[in-house]
Amino acid sequence: MKALRLESWHSAPVLRDVPVPAPRAGEVVVQVGGAGACHSDLHLMRDFSEGQLPWGPPFTLGHENAGWVHAVGDSVHGLEPGEAVAVVGAWGCGSCPRCLAGLETYCDHPERARPPGGGAGLGLDGGMAEFLLVPSSRHLVPLPAGLDPVHAAPLTDAGLTPYHAIRRSREKLAPGSTAVVIGIGGLGHLGVQILRATTAARIVAVDSRASARELAKRCGADLVLEPGEHLAQAVREASDGLAADVVLDFVGSDETLASAVACARQLADITIVGLGGGSFPFSFFNVPYEASIQTTYWGNRGELVEVLDLAARGLLHADVTTFGLEEAPLAYDQLRDGKVNGRAVVVPNTEYRP
Amino acid sequence: MKALRLESWHSAPVLRDVPVPAPRAGEVVVQVGGAGACHSDLHLMRDFSEGQLPWGPPFTLGHENAGWVHAVGDSVHGLEPGEAVAVVGAWGCGSCPRCLAGLETYCDHPERARPPGGGAGLGLDGGMAEFLLVPSSRHLVPLPAGLDPVHAAPLTDAGLTPYHAIRRSREKLAPGSTAVVIGIGGLGHLGVQILRATTAARIVAVDSRASARELAKRCGADLVLEPGEHLAQAVREASDGLAADVVLDFVGSDETLASAVACARQLADITIVGLGGGSFPFSFFNVPYEASIQTTYWGNRGELVEVLDLAARGLLHADVTTFGLEEAPLAYDQLRDGKVNGRAVVVPNTEYRP
Amino acid sequence: MKALRLESWHSAPVLRDVPVPAPRAGEVVVQVGGAGACHSDLHLMRDFSEGQLPWGPPFTLGHENAGWVHAVGDSVHGLEPGEAVAVVGAWGCGSCPRCLAGLETYCDHPERARPPGGGAGLGLDGGMAEFLLVPSSRHLVPLPAGLDPVHAAPLTDAGLTPYHAIRRSREKLAPGSTAVVIGIGGLGHLGVQILRATTAARIVAVDSRASARELAKRCGADLVLEPGEHLAQAVREASDGLAADVVLDFVGSDETLASAVACARQLADITIVGLGGGSFPFSFFNVPYEASIQTTYWGNRGELVEVLDLAARGLLHADVTTFGLEEAPLAYDQLRDGKVNGRAVVVPNTEYRP
Amino acid sequence: MKALRLESWHSAPVLRDVPVPAPRAGEVVVQVGGAGACHSDLHLMRDFSEGQLPWGPPFTLGHENAGWVHAVGDSVHGLEPGEAVAVVGAWGCGSCPRCLAGLETYCDHPERARPPGGGAGLGLDGGMAEFLLVPSSRHLVPLPAGLDPVHAAPLTDAGLTPYHAIRRSREKLAPGSTAVVIGIGGLGHLGVQILRATTAARIVAVDSRASARELAKRCGADLVLEPGEHLAQAVREASDGLAADVVLDFVGSDETLASAVACARQLADITIVGLGGGSFPFSFFNVPYEASIQTTYWGNRGELVEVLDLAARGLLHADVTTFGLEEAPLAYDQLRDGKVNGRAVVVPNTEYRP
Repeated sequence: MKALRLESWHSAPVLRDVPVPAPRAGEVVVQVGGAGACHSDLHLMRDFSEGQLPWGPPFTLGHENAGWVHAVGDSVHGLEPGEAVAVVGAWGCGSCPRCLAGLETYCDHPERARPPGGGAGLGLDGGMAEFLLVPSSRHLVPLPAGLDPVHAAPLTDAGLTPYHAIRRSREKLAPGSTAVVIGIGGLGHLGVQILRATTAARIVAVDSRASARELAKRCGADLVLEPGEHLAQAVREASDGLAADVVLDFVGSDETLASAVACARQLADITIVGLGGGSFPFSFFNVPYEASIQTTYWGNRGELVEVLDLAARGLLHADVTTFGLEEAPLAYDQLRDGKVNGRAVVVPNTEYRP
Repeated sequence: MKALRLESWHSAPVLRDVPVPAPRAGEVVVQVGGAGACHSDLHLMRDFSEGQLPWGPPFTLGHENAGWVHAVGDSVHGLEPGEAVAVVGAWGCGSCPRCLAGLETYCDHPERARPPGGGAGLGLDGGMAEFLLVPSSRHLVPLPAGLDPVHAAPLTDAGLTPYHAIRRSREKLAPGSTAVVIGIGGLGHLGVQILRATTAARIVAVDSRASARELAKRCGADLVLEPGEHLAQAVREASDGLAADVVLDFVGSDETLASAVACARQLADITIVGLGGGSFPFSFFNVPYEASIQTTYWGNRGELVEVLDLAARGLLHADVTTFGLEEAPLAYDQLRDGKVNGRAVVVPNTEYRP
Repeated sequence: MKALRLESWHSAPVLRDVPVPAPRAGEVVVQVGGAGACHSDLHLMRDFSEGQLPWGPPFTLGHENAGWVHAVGDSVHGLEPGEAVAVVGAWGCGSCPRCLAGLETYCDHPERARPPGGGAGLGLDGGMAEFLLVPSSRHLVPLPAGLDPVHAAPLTDAGLTPYHAIRRSREKLAPGSTAVVIGIGGLGHLGVQILRATTAARIVAVDSRASARELAKRCGADLVLEPGEHLAQAVREASDGLAADVVLDFVGSDETLASAVACARQLADITIVGLGGGSFPFSFFNVPYEASIQTTYWGNRGELVEVLDLAARGLLHADVTTFGLEEAPLAYDQLRDGKVNGRAVVVPNTEYRP
Repeated sequence: MKALRLESWHSAPVLRDVPVPAPRAGEVVVQVGGAGACHSDLHLMRDFSEGQLPWGPPFTLGHENAGWVHAVGDSVHGLEPGEAVAVVGAWGCGSCPRCLAGLETYCDHPERARPPGGGAGLGLDGGMAEFLLVPSSRHLVPLPAGLDPVHAAPLTDAGLTPYHAIRRSREKLAPGSTAVVIGIGGLGHLGVQILRATTAARIVAVDSRASARELAKRCGADLVLEPGEHLAQAVREASDGLAADVVLDFVGSDETLASAVACARQLADITIVGLGGGSFPFSFFNVPYEASIQTTYWGNRGELVEVLDLAARGLLHADVTTFGLEEAPLAYDQLRDGKVNGRAVVVPNTEYRP
């Protein structure tokens, strides 16, 4: 079968012929119906060298995957060929308490996972191929009726990541609260939709681009603002002087981290999702009392079930631009050049073929 | 000033001239802009006798109140005459831990309250008068911009009660969950709106009246059903076989209690709000594992702030029919005869008069 | 190998020679170091008939199991022969959201489990044998240092069940709260220890037997009481008039259910653990506002990790009387006659033999 | 009456004769039975100048207070002269949602409080006098039986502050978890006791002083460690390689903040209580995923009720050294010189005098 391979660090991926995987006991082979092309893949192609990560090329790209069960190994119960599924991307050791509770992103023993801290398209072969080997049925979530693999695939990452960040703060998002979303890109615009669908918080979206602010409005933001020195004051005015209960920073630069703190009130959650490389000098007197700062990373199995339910009900939608498997290199070119409308999804199979 | 007085048990209320109250230290007099006429008032007129309750007539009716601050006693800070406010109706002792945390409905020492278990329009003079004496500024919540006393008044009870019932179950109302609302009357139709605004749960509304089911759809129900023997099966079908995570029974009869349990899954919350006098024979094997059954009563101060915010943002709306103070007896007549469209609100003052 | 078999309903179990199980892919064979003999096994021998349950004899008894990993099938990672483990007893479908989160007791699709609602010693071969076949490594929890299989085995049920019941109510067990434990038997006395170790609640233990009340005191109860008409008043006096925040009924008869409700305050949790067959006629006015009534059943994977940690640290201890595998029938005889001191544990292997 | 007055910034306090306060409506005068002398008072004497704070001298010192109700103003219900009470120290506006819920430390409108951000002994007259004027009965909590004002007074700050910090993290302190307490001084040693009484977490106490480590052991620490480069590794070894679930830093220097982060695992709470002036350069890759960093400040009304309950039951104890009111200047001298054993408490009245 064809697969888009990263063959070495600092290289562009290439289409190659590879063997169709066969499932051993406990494993499942998925016929891929959608594999999202993610900005983080561009980092993999350009920014890493031998030894920096506990894993490396060659492997097939694609860590946002959905499709149909194709073949199951021994000891796999409850999955029938043809069943539509999404793939949970973070694969931990599978036996520590956090993995057993579905929190494989925060596995206690990543060194026992194969590879450590990796997954499909991250050291192991990913979904930019006709078939994807999934090492355990626990990584599969059924697609609800009305949601196809093309639209589900990007939600396994670009939807799940903001969903997890929002869900951890749900106690602070009661009616009357204010949520600030900084950076209305691929993840941020889904974050606005998730806030709209699951809370009655006031949503303030912040982006320097007018088009992004327009997108935020269409997604349900109550107010859109430009970044800058007046931002914190504008957030206070929009919240009866109280400032924000939750700030989600999808950029993560020095500037946005400082803005995020400046917009927050006492007891707020300030959550950094974006990998912008910024830093903030936390001290007792420069952050409001008991406002917490933390990162988050991806999300959990149970949360993906909830994300897919939102999408199936029409409450969460990612625009996608599709590419055939042969066009996968083009998808990354366009992604790099900022020319993709919505999320780029590579579609190796347009329907299930038994 | 004029006031609608219940002068004795088993009587119709009458308009009388009474003195305008003056605030002592800590007290506030509110110029009433809206006083809801509630079905429970009809019970007060008909169903109680001397000695049944720890309080009794004569008193002015009206326990759903909003208006404007008129005069404040000594030691009252932060309230200015003319400020629009809603009145939290449950008045506890004010000094037990639950009262101090705002949970006056569940006061640990109701015997220290005056009267025990009472409030405005419930043993003390209520809001169906030009002015209302409120014994502490802690019972007042500012009205957010865009919400007037006429629409706020009924929300202090008919909105707050379902809000409290839903908020206590919010952990069980994640995307993918199913909420069943039994009885789409004055409280139930607001319950559907609250579920829609604050969660992404699937909402199943149950009522025997076609008009009520229509109302539920307009309020945001995903599915409407008639009660009866097929109800539980229909709820299962609507929830992928799982049954309901939360059931809110706004009727409370033997039949609805049995239906509520039949619709529930393991770990569900089954919450009885309606005073229908029903009973359910709870035992280990006739309720799903760890499904909890409980009543709820009214709501808390902080929750009323949240209810009013929903209303000010257009996410919660009670239709009202207004009556002048002179027409208050008529309001109750029409209420008794089922002729009121939405909630009946008596309007002693149509605007603030300094 | 030898195994204690229930060969038909309404029979006493007998020792038989059966083949040593071999693990297929995903499975684990445990060398049994402790298998608790539970009262519920006596019910299995006496009170069921063909067709009442979705499973039936013949099978090996023993659903409270611990031991050492003996052999692992393909695809089992992270478990080495000789590692000490406890077995989580509730085996669900393994792929619904609740199973994936470790809540196999409340599996959404028990009909997909094999057998439905069963487990080791409950339709499948249990631990009263030299070796036990466990169908997935996800059912195994490592024993912490300092805890041996003999003492761990009964905790997988008699410790886990009260732990789950207490943990669900932990928010209501703050300092100043009062917990009432009704029935100080095998589960109840562990419940008292768990409350003592994990909360600062006042603990009131209720039992008609003086010896049980003495045991409760040794386990950390602050106050012991006899059941009867004065119970609720005594609980009020012990709690500054407030009554109980949490009531755990390990009996479950009509009388104890009525007592449990009578001891509860508003907002309390009233949790029925005991299978005494009782019933309580729940209605709006005979239970305090928002006091919830529910059953619970066994516990979850993550909770068993916590139970074993308590035991390894000396904070939770079950007295045990041990029996060799040949003596297993005797263990049940003595259990039936009330002659066992503490929990009866059958010990097929006294140490790991590679 | 005599009172210990701070008459100007940069001065030592002096005993002066001042009028006995009289309660206006809503107010309460407390006969002081214990007033803690706190290190932060030394800062008030030395480190502030005109205009730095929204309030200033002259005022009576003492912000940790307990005693007996002496006189109540109009509109104060439920408090009788002679009743023993502790004083909640943080006084907010009293009418914002957070104040109404008891969270006056995080008042939304401190500018409406008198003085903003102040309280007894902090801009207003405090408890180092025979009588203390408390502006609202909502600031008083009854002392439980068995706890006297001398021992209660320091708990209103030195007990409440760590209690609040621990309680916010209680979900992360299940059996099997590890809590690290850095700095075993006046607050830290009470923090260790609170962890011991209310959780089953493993407690690791860190201090450079051997005497402080000894104190931590007596308070219930499982392990005591010296600070330094090996600390994080030692915490890992003590926690099966997992690192800490909760870190409480009662020092707050650059070094302890860095240590706190180094000891934390993914999802941990890192809470800074100490005012050591340190800073930590938070960024995406130098803190474990979703480990949160935050400060906390003092505590809430409901939490003080819980702290006092722990103390009355013997689960929380602060050693105190008492001083008569005339000796109050000496108390501060000894405090400054590090010569006080336990907490210094000034005792203006040794018993209630009607």
